[in-house]
Amino acid sequence: MKLYLLKNGVNPRRVRIFLAEKKVRLGEDLPVEEFDMESMGHKKPDYLAKNPLGTLPALELDDGTVISESVAICRYFEEMITEPVLMGRGALGAATVEMWNRRMELELLLPTIDAFVHTHPFWVGKRPQIAGWGEARRGQLVARMTWLDGELKDRPFIAGDTYSIADITAQVALLTARGALKLPVPDDHANLARWYAAVSARPTARA
Amino acid sequence: MKLYLLKNGVNPRRVRIFLAEKKVRLGEDLPVEEFDMESMGHKKPDYLAKNPLGTLPALELDDGTVISESVAICRYFEEMITEPVLMGRGALGAATVEMWNRRMELELLLPTIDAFVHTHPFWVGKRPQIAGWGEARRGQLVARMTWLDGELKDRPFIAGDTYSIADITAQVALLTARGALKLPVPDDHANLARWYAAVSARPTARA
Repeated sequence: MKLYLLKNGVNPRRVRIFLAEKKVRLGEDLPVEEFDMESMGHKKPDYLAKNPLGTLPALELDDGTVISESVAICRYFEEMITEPVLMGRGALGAATVEMWNRRMELELLLPTIDAFVHTHPFWVGKRPQIAGWGEARRGQLVARMTWLDGELKDRPFIAGDTYSIADITAQVALLTARGALKLPVPDDHANLARWYAAVSARPTARA
Repeated sequence: MKLYLLKNGVNPRRVRIFLAEKKVRLGEDLPVEEFDMESMGHKKPDYLAKNPLGTLPALELDDGTVISESVAICRYFEEMITEPVLMGRGALGAATVEMWNRRMELELLLPTIDAFVHTHPFWVGKRPQIAGWGEARRGQLVARMTWLDGELKDRPFIAGDTYSIADITAQVALLTARGALKLPVPDDHANLARWYAAVSARPTARA
């Protein structure tokens, strides 16, 4: 088995944190190959033969089967390593985490990535940039931080009483917003700031 | 229990088809309230009290718990009604369907919705439109149809040998592309056309 990652990649970080929570040690329990944006190995034929879309992360099983998409990789390990539960259990538990993880993707993570890709100098010449779209997504992200601050008024974690993949998605989104967009959690968003401090203090946060 | 839908809504159709495959009869086994884009009931206080994001579909349980996000609703019913399996079973089965469903969302459905929302006259005045983004997403959709045609060369369904939620996502995307964007499956995409004819012929396709 082998995990393909991208150095400093936003989605690969979700899988890193998820696996750290599951106590899987990268490079020890699970071999890793890490590409980077300089050599762009993930857009070259060897990797494209494994994953034609050229996306990272991807998990290669011993029989050569390749699973791409961060959440698909997480789901594989959720089924293989049952504790701690990070994707909910039972119909209501699984549906609740699914809902919150998707809200964190659609309302926070994708707007953050779009704002980064469409407005940041790093991406000039690497991807087509549509500045108006990047600005619109930045505005959406700011509005959604305020919404999420209200949601966190009465509970410790995004999907309820326990840490889940929805927290991982949200913390990676806000880490990226702070670093790449210079949009930290606003000081007057006390609930969101309390939650962000708590998840950032977990031993797995820098996985 | 009650299901909230949007008339002619793209995402609500995914849930309709999923439930039809599970033999759940809307309005009989499961009460339904359907909003529409004329009266916009889903943006009014009664519904926003249930789902503050104002998205549809949403499932209200008997204790008042509300689950939004199409795939979260599907996951609830996948756990409650175990046959037919539409979201994979076991670590590899669940991860494979998750991967393909997400690819169908990210590569087909979201580009289709973006192209529709950002370029179609229907959305003028309803949503901010960024034409350049809509055109870019239309181009992505065309390219991804060609990619998917190649993927379907050796298997009957999107995620393998059996029909799954990944097929539902893809068929709804292509139905919307044909209707709203006037982008039908190109005649020279024989594998994609064969698959689309097969899924469209299922009794559940017009659910």
